[in-house]
Amino acid sequence: MKKLITIVLSIAITSYAGLGQRKIVNLPDLPGFVTLKCDFHMHTVFSDGNVWPTVRVDEAWRDGLDAISITDHIEYTPKEDFIPVDHNAAWKIAENYARERNMILVQGTEITRKMPPGHFNALFIQDASLMAVDSVWDALEAAIKQGAFLQWNHPGWKSQQPDGIPRMYEIHYKLIKNGWLHGIEFFNDSEYYPLVLTFCKQYNLAVMANSDNHGVISEEYIEPFYFNRPMTLVFAKARTHDALKEALFAGRTMAYFRDKIAGREELVKPFFYQCISISKPFYENDKSIFFEVSNKSDIPFYLENGATDAPTTITLAANSVTRIIVDKNVDNPLVYNVKNVLTGEDEVLKVELRY
Amino acid sequence: MKKLITIVLSIAITSYAGLGQRKIVNLPDLPGFVTLKCDFHMHTVFSDGNVWPTVRVDEAWRDGLDAISITDHIEYTPKEDFIPVDHNAAWKIAENYARERNMILVQGTEITRKMPPGHFNALFIQDASLMAVDSVWDALEAAIKQGAFLQWNHPGWKSQQPDGIPRMYEIHYKLIKNGWLHGIEFFNDSEYYPLVLTFCKQYNLAVMANSDNHGVISEEYIEPFYFNRPMTLVFAKARTHDALKEALFAGRTMAYFRDKIAGREELVKPFFYQCISISKPFYENDKSIFFEVSNKSDIPFYLENGATDAPTTITLAANSVTRIIVDKNVDNPLVYNVKNVLTGEDEVLKVELRY
Amino acid sequence: MKKLITIVLSIAITSYAGLGQRKIVNLPDLPGFVTLKCDFHMHTVFSDGNVWPTVRVDEAWRDGLDAISITDHIEYTPKEDFIPVDHNAAWKIAENYARERNMILVQGTEITRKMPPGHFNALFIQDASLMAVDSVWDALEAAIKQGAFLQWNHPGWKSQQPDGIPRMYEIHYKLIKNGWLHGIEFFNDSEYYPLVLTFCKQYNLAVMANSDNHGVISEEYIEPFYFNRPMTLVFAKARTHDALKEALFAGRTMAYFRDKIAGREELVKPFFYQCISISKPFYENDKSIFFEVSNKSDIPFYLENGATDAPTTITLAANSVTRIIVDKNVDNPLVYNVKNVLTGEDEVLKVELRY
Amino acid sequence: MKKLITIVLSIAITSYAGLGQRKIVNLPDLPGFVTLKCDFHMHTVFSDGNVWPTVRVDEAWRDGLDAISITDHIEYTPKEDFIPVDHNAAWKIAENYARERNMILVQGTEITRKMPPGHFNALFIQDASLMAVDSVWDALEAAIKQGAFLQWNHPGWKSQQPDGIPRMYEIHYKLIKNGWLHGIEFFNDSEYYPLVLTFCKQYNLAVMANSDNHGVISEEYIEPFYFNRPMTLVFAKARTHDALKEALFAGRTMAYFRDKIAGREELVKPFFYQCISISKPFYENDKSIFFEVSNKSDIPFYLENGATDAPTTITLAANSVTRIIVDKNVDNPLVYNVKNVLTGEDEVLKVELRY
Repeated sequence: MKKLITIVLSIAITSYAGLGQRKIVNLPDLPGFVTLKCDFHMHTVFSDGNVWPTVRVDEAWRDGLDAISITDHIEYTPKEDFIPVDHNAAWKIAENYARERNMILVQGTEITRKMPPGHFNALFIQDASLMAVDSVWDALEAAIKQGAFLQWNHPGWKSQQPDGIPRMYEIHYKLIKNGWLHGIEFFNDSEYYPLVLTFCKQYNLAVMANSDNHGVISEEYIEPFYFNRPMTLVFAKARTHDALKEALFAGRTMAYFRDKIAGREELVKPFFYQCISISKPFYENDKSIFFEVSNKSDIPFYLENGATDAPTTITLAANSVTRIIVDKNVDNPLVYNVKNVLTGEDEVLKVELRY
Repeated sequence: MKKLITIVLSIAITSYAGLGQRKIVNLPDLPGFVTLKCDFHMHTVFSDGNVWPTVRVDEAWRDGLDAISITDHIEYTPKEDFIPVDHNAAWKIAENYARERNMILVQGTEITRKMPPGHFNALFIQDASLMAVDSVWDALEAAIKQGAFLQWNHPGWKSQQPDGIPRMYEIHYKLIKNGWLHGIEFFNDSEYYPLVLTFCKQYNLAVMANSDNHGVISEEYIEPFYFNRPMTLVFAKARTHDALKEALFAGRTMAYFRDKIAGREELVKPFFYQCISISKPFYENDKSIFFEVSNKSDIPFYLENGATDAPTTITLAANSVTRIIVDKNVDNPLVYNVKNVLTGEDEVLKVELRY
Repeated sequence: MKKLITIVLSIAITSYAGLGQRKIVNLPDLPGFVTLKCDFHMHTVFSDGNVWPTVRVDEAWRDGLDAISITDHIEYTPKEDFIPVDHNAAWKIAENYARERNMILVQGTEITRKMPPGHFNALFIQDASLMAVDSVWDALEAAIKQGAFLQWNHPGWKSQQPDGIPRMYEIHYKLIKNGWLHGIEFFNDSEYYPLVLTFCKQYNLAVMANSDNHGVISEEYIEPFYFNRPMTLVFAKARTHDALKEALFAGRTMAYFRDKIAGREELVKPFFYQCISISKPFYENDKSIFFEVSNKSDIPFYLENGATDAPTTITLAANSVTRIIVDKNVDNPLVYNVKNVLTGEDEVLKVELRY
Repeated sequence: MKKLITIVLSIAITSYAGLGQRKIVNLPDLPGFVTLKCDFHMHTVFSDGNVWPTVRVDEAWRDGLDAISITDHIEYTPKEDFIPVDHNAAWKIAENYARERNMILVQGTEITRKMPPGHFNALFIQDASLMAVDSVWDALEAAIKQGAFLQWNHPGWKSQQPDGIPRMYEIHYKLIKNGWLHGIEFFNDSEYYPLVLTFCKQYNLAVMANSDNHGVISEEYIEPFYFNRPMTLVFAKARTHDALKEALFAGRTMAYFRDKIAGREELVKPFFYQCISISKPFYENDKSIFFEVSNKSDIPFYLENGATDAPTTITLAANSVTRIIVDKNVDNPLVYNVKNVLTGEDEVLKVELRY
């Protein structure tokens, strides 16, 4: 009979509410590599950010990241009336704090000039104060002398390129020729620049995605609308500072934000196939075959342009199973474009579903 | 410099909103077995429920279940002024509908009598109408003749046991003696009866958890407060109707609802260890050792009563990594009780964390 | 000093989770009228819906609606193998159930024909079975004889108009000439047809918005993506069945879904001004004046095309206060178009903000 | 007929996601007074907090507060290796920032001593540096000389009172005798001290509730579990700095957090009746009368101990309508205790529902 049960909840809410937990970001590894989730661009009160350096470690820990770099501006320190300029302060404060939390902290800074050449993050440095020099070239050279990985930040930022389109100037070509440029931001916060994929493929640079956060991560990337902040996914041989560095210089990266990933086909294609698994047909009738595709990752995939007698579009929602019904006469495998996996300025990944 | 980026979202919301998706419930398998998520108790308009049988299949598919049984009452059909009584109607309507969705549908019914003996679900039957007889014993025998798995429903339901405590009557002992009783509900919706664990262990019966839903699942089990409906977790040799049946008769089950699981120690202990993984220490200082425990399941675990110089309580939140700091002098492994994993009326699981 | 407080929650979750509550939809009344929130199109197991009629009352009660009509199809009863056809069944079952919940239930049915003339809901009828006749004209006349309000449903539904554009056929003109057509759906579920505004203004008909729900409301309109189902907002002299009827025949309605409203300017303009309140300037400096606009309704308003030296676009988010900074030299009031308040096929509401 | 509509969403998500909006906290005014929502206890990088002062203004603006005070510690400045001590820094940085956002900023500081007398916030001061003196009495006197409102913070804080029970020491009695003590925290973050109500009533002091936040508000008070941070509700004659000050010294306050309010009966009783409205009976049958209670506030009310033949407990959920069914013979009005409205250490508000 129909029952009305008074619900008495003894639930330990803290375990649901995300208070003080480190969430697991569901993204697969590639064979031979671990996928490190990284954010290499953020600020603190030591430049124009609004939080203390340890907050950056706590946020990243909670968000399930493996590595971050705090990259306060060298040339822009608007809080100096209250905080004396110290370009290495964030590193000094956060270094051990990160170690105690199993976070890889990369020492970094942002060399902040008008375009050209724009803003550059120097990662894996030892002393940011040496970049506090007049000439931008001297500043970049000071970074390189410390073994830095140089990342060109938000090359299409509207304050520097009103049309939003990244442009290479003479100095960028010179940097590339010298082997001084190693990566370019494809995603900077919510902005992204498709042309960066072309540059990265042409000059063999790492595709990067970072938050460039100045405020508070949890106020800006709010569920359920934004599951994760922008992340540079790095395919490293191990989860260590040195392996991360090796992978970055080798360009084994992918840009990820919300429901988009971008990178070279040879990386994003195996990544896609690690995210999904395709069942054998579980049922068929006179006309159709039924099978399932599981997507165990946090990234949805939007497939389109399927064959006649197969679905035109398929959404493989994140952490979900999708049922697919195809005509018995359709060719196996099905071939689709993955609309949200970018492999070039105007190219998306093409995949096969073999059932 | 600080940037204000106008956020323009082109996000495909459907992939986030859970519209029309089949979610993946994160619960591990046991070696040699697949963990089937099941709900063997629910109603439709053919007794006192409020939905059409296909709704039950759709709900279960969306909730990531593997198997369900629709168990309309034999003796209670309050909608008969509008719907002619047909005890097999739900099965006839839903059978093929489930097959097309890769859902295992178990034919069932609810024999609905006052206490004793109370309500019983007969699962794996072929014709529910044969249970429409006067004598409860005859009804139960009719089920057994069809090879039924008999489940005693909500034995402590307050309408039948005002103090909420399950009681075995003569007829229950007779059923057990005959080998006719195979399982008892530990969870029925939000109610649960600790004593059921004692009965099940004593008489070698399956521990069950079911929704007994009459209305609409999505109105009753609302995120983020209730992640999942009550589920009987069945450890089967394969994801098939026959393997499910074998596992149920063999008693390889566990009851699961919200943040509680209940079952025999020999099943819940390996299940716990499949849910978690413990890292090597990632850091140590003069005084302490730091390590991590990952819980990749949807179930949080509440550990308590740790050693001196180790945390008294630890919450291993669902889908999260927990950092644990212990004194260098503390014994390895740590030993904890898992407060929300019940192995007996007054017993909880004891586990070791070896780092 | 920094404190870490262990959080112990004693919160009564039920009061937050929306279980069994009737929510308040925040929409203002107009002077002299109460704003009734209504849904005049939905189905049950007595045609091709999947729920029992009382579910429709419970859903609407919980969603904060004032009035509904259950409108099962006359011509389409696919469940008749199990449920004998009874065109008045839903009414008989739900009538008193609604009364006990302070819900206004309007007796209705859907006359379901191919285009032309398409589908029509007859509201305020006494016996739906009299519409079960061959000729559509006879069916419509049978409704009119009972004093029905006739609503043309989803006139641009793609199954009937592949290009999605509503078209008036000869029979529609004849209905209008006879005074037999009283309203047209602008919103039907997520679909909407801008041209309906033109028809309604030209022929003095009520603009309608309904869910046309066949399944379960809570599965289809999921927060936070959809706050409310589509609603016909009716400006009635009182919250009674008779006042509702009077207002509908008088055409005092507005269509509302998600973040869009549509209707005649003489209704939506005062409605907009009832939703918001504008503060006096609270601050000014050498250059600018600062003031606030409060929007106490559940509908956000998107203002655009402001003057030079004033914001180009302003979002007055639902249940929020918006701060506006304007140049001292700008004309007061500011003039904006409200992008999501439609007054015609290609027209939106123009408003003034006087501070 | 059943329709499957492809949902295409063009929704402006920002208006839903709470990004950059000022929400409206639904709490009624009292006749003759406006209800100011205030938080008078929080920290920044200028003591042991982790954010820049402007973050505190932004958080409070977004949370719908009217007034805040930033109260960095005088005696505890652990960041001084990087930030020179300046007890007025937060005020200097935030003063104009708050004015431009229509937020009332109260200059304050925290005098931080061991118990007795414990920690005190001095509000409405002009120069915090004058409190940087050795003797606690001298520090408190320096505050009083500036016209300060003195608030005793978290009197039962476990670091200072291991049993969690507030105690008055000689110095507290002396402060009271001098008229130097004006308020005591009932809520400090999630902690609360029932005995504070006794003290406040006995000595005519203001009941306070504050967040004492050191980190980031949005990480600590997460929806849907915590709708609002702790707030001191102040019943002021106007929404101005001076009216706020007058009301605080007059003790017209109430403590509010999550689902609890605490204060003097003469304030909380009219506040309760402003939150709810009771309908006339909308229906009756042979046995029962049906009426509704609307609660338009963000606070749920838990009523208990009703008469025989009336509900024993009633939850008036926040922003919801509750249907109440009573026996015709029951006395009108119904009398209830409101379990979550505290008027004394062991007393709750008693109310009448007259229908």
